[in-house]
This record gives sequence, structure tokens and C-alpha cells, in this order.
Amino acid sequence: MKYIENIRKISPLVHSITNYVTVNDVANVLLACGASPIMADDEGEVEDITSICSSLYINIGTLNTRTIASMIKAGKKSNALGHITVLDPVGAGASALRTQTAQKLISEIKFDVIRANASEISALCGEDISSRGVDASEADTIDGEKAMYAADKLDSVIAVTGKTDIVASKDHYFEIYNGRKEMKSITGTGCQLSALTAAFVAANREDTLSACAAAVTAMGVAGEIGFNNLLEGEGNSSYRNRIIDAIYNMTDTVLEKYGRSKFV
Amino acid sequence: MKYIENIRKISPLVHSITNYVTVNDVANVLLACGASPIMADDEGEVEDITSICSSLYINIGTLNTRTIASMIKAGKKSNALGHITVLDPVGAGASALRTQTAQKLISEIKFDVIRANASEISALCGEDISSRGVDASEADTIDGEKAMYAADKLDSVIAVTGKTDIVASKDHYFEIYNGRKEMKSITGTGCQLSALTAAFVAANREDTLSACAAAVTAMGVAGEIGFNNLLEGEGNSSYRNRIIDAIYNMTDTVLEKYGRSKFV
Amino acid sequence: MKYIENIRKISPLVHSITNYVTVNDVANVLLACGASPIMADDEGEVEDITSICSSLYINIGTLNTRTIASMIKAGKKSNALGHITVLDPVGAGASALRTQTAQKLISEIKFDVIRANASEISALCGEDISSRGVDASEADTIDGEKAMYAADKLDSVIAVTGKTDIVASKDHYFEIYNGRKEMKSITGTGCQLSALTAAFVAANREDTLSACAAAVTAMGVAGEIGFNNLLEGEGNSSYRNRIIDAIYNMTDTVLEKYGRSKFV
Repeated sequence: MKYIENIRKISPLVHSITNYVTVNDVANVLLACGASPIMADDEGEVEDITSICSSLYINIGTLNTRTIASMIKAGKKSNALGHITVLDPVGAGASALRTQTAQKLISEIKFDVIRANASEISALCGEDISSRGVDASEADTIDGEKAMYAADKLDSVIAVTGKTDIVASKDHYFEIYNGRKEMKSITGTGCQLSALTAAFVAANREDTLSACAAAVTAMGVAGEIGFNNLLEGEGNSSYRNRIIDAIYNMTDTVLEKYGRSKFV
Repeated sequence: MKYIENIRKISPLVHSITNYVTVNDVANVLLACGASPIMADDEGEVEDITSICSSLYINIGTLNTRTIASMIKAGKKSNALGHITVLDPVGAGASALRTQTAQKLISEIKFDVIRANASEISALCGEDISSRGVDASEADTIDGEKAMYAADKLDSVIAVTGKTDIVASKDHYFEIYNGRKEMKSITGTGCQLSALTAAFVAANREDTLSACAAAVTAMGVAGEIGFNNLLEGEGNSSYRNRIIDAIYNMTDTVLEKYGRSKFV
Repeated sequence: MKYIENIRKISPLVHSITNYVTVNDVANVLLACGASPIMADDEGEVEDITSICSSLYINIGTLNTRTIASMIKAGKKSNALGHITVLDPVGAGASALRTQTAQKLISEIKFDVIRANASEISALCGEDISSRGVDASEADTIDGEKAMYAADKLDSVIAVTGKTDIVASKDHYFEIYNGRKEMKSITGTGCQLSALTAAFVAANREDTLSACAAAVTAMGVAGEIGFNNLLEGEGNSSYRNRIIDAIYNMTDTVLEKYGRSKFV
């Protein structure tokens, strides 16, 4: 497997229309894996920008009415050009605007990958397909069967992150066991992962499901390496840097050595 | 005192309508203290988002006309629901737009806490209540008496940061002596503190004045611990991370041990 | 030479209308060098804000139609007040909107410095004046003669960053040999440099060309020091912090000792 080597060889440009909270980390994690970020969200230029890129990453984290039109335009252009198109429906279910916008995006744009948590996937599906974690402190989760159902319904590979991560097409799924719970104490690890997915899949187009699973595994492994690299007294802000640093130093060999997953 | 323990127990959601300069640090410091951030600034969703939160934090640092309406709507909803509502009037006094917007916000919304520096509080009061620092390099300051006057006039607990921090209601005030002057060389320590205030007060509702003073003390203590953790060659960018890290590792015991304040 | 000492003495306020990707790093690097940042992009306040500053920094990295009008208004006010005015035409050439906006800005505003890469300068000039790097992995570059031509045509000192950095007026130029190729793996080192330029030139107004060259040299030297300070396992995210830290700790003595350049 040469997922990361392929990214570093072709250095895919990733057009990111993303939230202003975590955008800097998104840009740096894309550079870390060997891709190049371009952020552009004005309706007047998104088609131009998408045209020179390999993939488009749409994230609705700080949605506003001005950029919804930009997302639709960019998405249609990306589809027309056959580019990889990725959605992170941040907060779908938390407000009517987000739920409706996410549903509008999936009805008008064909996504190769949707990366989300269990409740966001449920909001996109219009039905609750999540199950409760075994103890109260755990977030909701989606099992492999349900994830394949969602992938079929949403016509996209889906990557659902939680205690165990699930990456599913309508016929198969990966369970991925990497990562650490402390990653939840950093803003934007999900946004970063979605961006990585856009890079991994763009540089490894022969198998979207496997490339997406590799991205999820890479983020989890980076979370473990970054945690081990924390110095005494460090916390979530330094951890953020150390995870991106671990992506910067990651190779396919490291990914293969530390990745833990099951293919069904 | 269990200020931090209470935050970590209930993990209050803090709806933040804040500037795009320091928003990432605001999100990470909220996670560090045990709260959860949600950023949303579109008029079409701010009421939905505020409704699922415990507190609302409004910061006018990169004000624009689109988001002023969102701030008003969110603030009124927050008041109607009895949520904690915090204002950081960044730059009030520096432009007519900021001064007028800050005054409009306090006339239409009831704030539990206003966190600002001396000149911003003066701009809100419509009169100069600050006094000059003893040497030329010091910023203006507000003494305890004037702070109580401002708290009465603005109908809010006020937290004025400066060489000595003052947290005042109309009847009482705290002087807080923690923090370091090097914190001024980091963008956004004030924005972060205001966000912390929204978390501390939301999780400790029985005494807004004390909870607000605890937030100010925590930021000051974190500034001292973070400074001591700096490695050779590090400067303001690493210091930013080390302060947030110190909040992440802070406990009520640490806060009690290192906090230095006087209650009047 | 007392470039940095002068910044720390007068602490110039730099009004920055810049992209939301790298704005936090821009603010921190300005503080690191001894200047103070103010970010404000609403048409209703940019003239007020520019009026209280020493320089204006315009960066079109995440351009949108709302802020173009703000840039024009702020630029005209800055010119009228005789303030230092700096442009970073990020992505000029990548979309019609950016190219046209950058050209509109230079036709309506007089810039003291334009800081860009070779292809952006070409887009501004309306003709390709770059030359290919000697090996395929190198970005395009502009030689000293062409840079003087561009400086004449654009009526501004220009700072073109690449393998060798060129800072040129219409009559003279500096070649600067500092910096490391790994700086390209961090988002926003260019944006930060442009901001530094606004601070260096504002505090050293007797010689714009030399002050601009000093800013470029400082960023390159910081890139070298920051790289040497990297701990094992660190990558681009920590490198970002260590570069800003190196600016924080930089002195004119360090700049003189490690700066490597040629004046023609």
C-alpha cells in the first residue's frame, strides 16, 4: 500500500470551503500529508478554484447563507469535472439550517465520501440509525451493518468516527481501532480528518473505500503517536500540534505497522 | 470550591459568536476547561443553537453588519431561556461601529458578565472611568470603586483585566493578582478569558461574581504555569499553547493553591 | 541597523484585512516583532480603524465581495494619511476574481510594498516575467532585473519570495539567501512575512527598500532558527510555532549575524 507516497508524489490540490474555527489546522494537516490546500468561498470564484484542484472538501461548520450558494456551485463543478468531492456535515441535526443545508447538498451534489459522527449521519439519513455507547460517557455509534445501509441510502462511502471508526460502502466496511479518546478534547480533529480523506482519495482513486479507511487509520495512528510525544505539562493545545506533526512524519510503513482494522 | 470540577461534570455547551482571529484558541480553551464550544453566527440558526446551549458568548472582535443581527437575536433568545450571557466588547472606543454596536448590545440584551479592558469599559459607560498606570508602559486601569460603579451602570458583573484584574458587582469586588505581562504578547488571551467566564459561570450559577473571579484567576494562574513550562528558545506562539495546556491540566486544588486575590 | 529595535520602540499598529486561514498567526507574528495587530474588515469601520494605525496590510487570501469594498476604502484612507500600505495578492492568477481584484487594488491604491510569489507578481504585471526553477520541484522565480522592472511597472517596492528572495525597487534590489524549503510545508509563512513587512517599514520609514529587505531576512533567519529548535518527532505544526517564537526572540544583532544577502 502506497497511500501516503501517492499523495506526496502528486500533491493534490484540495479546494476547501470550510469553517473559520479550524481552517488553519485543516490547511496545515493537508500540507503535512503532502497535499496542498486552497481556501476560497466566494461564489464569484469557487468554480475557477475547483477547476484547478483535484478534490473539493465542503464543511458546514460555520455555515452562512453567503457560502451555501458557493458550496452548491463548487460541488456541481467538481462533479462535472469528475473530481473527488467530500462532505463534513458538522452539526447536522443541531439546527434546522444545518440539517436542511446538509440534505440540500447531498441532493444536488454527488459525494465520494461523507465523514461525520453518528448523530450527523442520522440527521442526513432522516432517521436515527445510531446506537448508544455501552457506558454513559460514550458518544453514540453506528455499527457496520447500519453504516452500509447509510452508505447505500446516501450514495457515498461514509466514514463514521467514534470509539471504533467505521468506513463503509454499501457492500463492505472497515472497523478501525486506532485513535485515543483525548482527541475529542481538541477542536477540529474531525474537520482535519475529513480534509485528509479528500487528499487520500484524490491520490488513490482506484479504491475509494480503502483510501478513505487509510485516511481514518492515519488520523488515529497520528493521535496515538502525538499522545506519546506529549511532554510533561502539555495538554490539548500542544496535542493538536503533535498530531499534525505526526501526520507530517507519517509513512506508509508506519501506517501499516500501527494501523489496526478489520475488513468485512 | 469546585468551580472546575463542576464544569467537567456538566460540560456546558457555550455558543460563541466570536471573531475569526482567535476563534480556534477560544474553542480549545473551552475544551481545556471541560466545556464544549459551538460556533454559529448565521441569523438563520443562532436561535436554534443558543437553545441547546448553557451559555452564549458574544465577542465583537471582527464585527460585521451580517453578524450584528445574529448577536441581537441570539442574545434575546439566551435571555428568554435564562442562559448565562457574556459580552467581550473588543475594541469598543476604537471605531464608531464598535462603540455603537456594543452600546446597542447592552441596551437590548441583559449580560451576566462583561469582560473587557479599561478603555472598553469606559466606552460602554460613555465616560472615562479609567486611570493611568503608574509608569508609561502600563495600560490604563480601573480601580475597585469605579468598577462597582460600572457594574451598577451596565447592570452586569464586570471583569476588567489589566495589571491587577478587577471583578466587580455593584456591591463587591475582587482584586486578582495572578497573570504575567508577557500574556499581552499573545493574541486572544482576553477572548479566551471571556469564553472561560461563560463556562465557569454556567457551571456555577449560585454565585456569578465568585465564578467569574475564579475564571479570571484560572487564566492568570495558567499564564504563570505556562510561562514556567516554556522551553529555551520558545516565545509567544508556544506560550499560547502552554497556557491552554495549563487550563487543560488545571484543578480546583491548583487554582486554590496559586490563586492570589482580595475580596472587598 | 536598528530595524527591530525601532519596531519595539514605537510598536506600530497594523490594520490587517486578511484571510481567515492564517489570521491568527499573522496577529501573533506582529506581536512577536513588537508591533500590534488590529483586524477589522467591515466597510462601516475600516476608515476609523486605519486612521488610528501606522500601516495597513491587505491580503486577498479568502477574498469575498463584502470585503473588497472595505479594502478599497481602507487603502484610500491609508494613502490619504500617508500611512504605509502593503499588499499580499494571494492567489492572483488562480481565479479571475483574484486577478481582477488585485489589479483593481493596485490601480486605486498606492502600495509601498507588494509581497508575493513569482506567479502572483506576473499576474499583477499582466505578463509572465517568471523563470522556471532549475529542477522540476522548484517553484518559479523572478530574477533581480525582472523584479526591478516589476517594481517600476507596479510603482512599489516588491518582495518576491522563492528559493532566493528578491526585494526590489525600480533601481536596486537585494538578493536574500536565508530561509528553508520546509517553510513551504506551513500555511501562512507568506502572509506572516507580508505582515512583518508592514511593521518593519512603518517603524523604519527612511528607507522602504532596506526595511522591507530586513523583514524578509528576519523571516528567513527565523525559519532557520525555528528549524534548529525542532524537537524529535516535531513537524510542520510545531515548526509554525517555533518560527513565530524565533521572531519573538529576534534582535537586530541576530539579524545582522545570520542574515545573508547581496545588494545590487
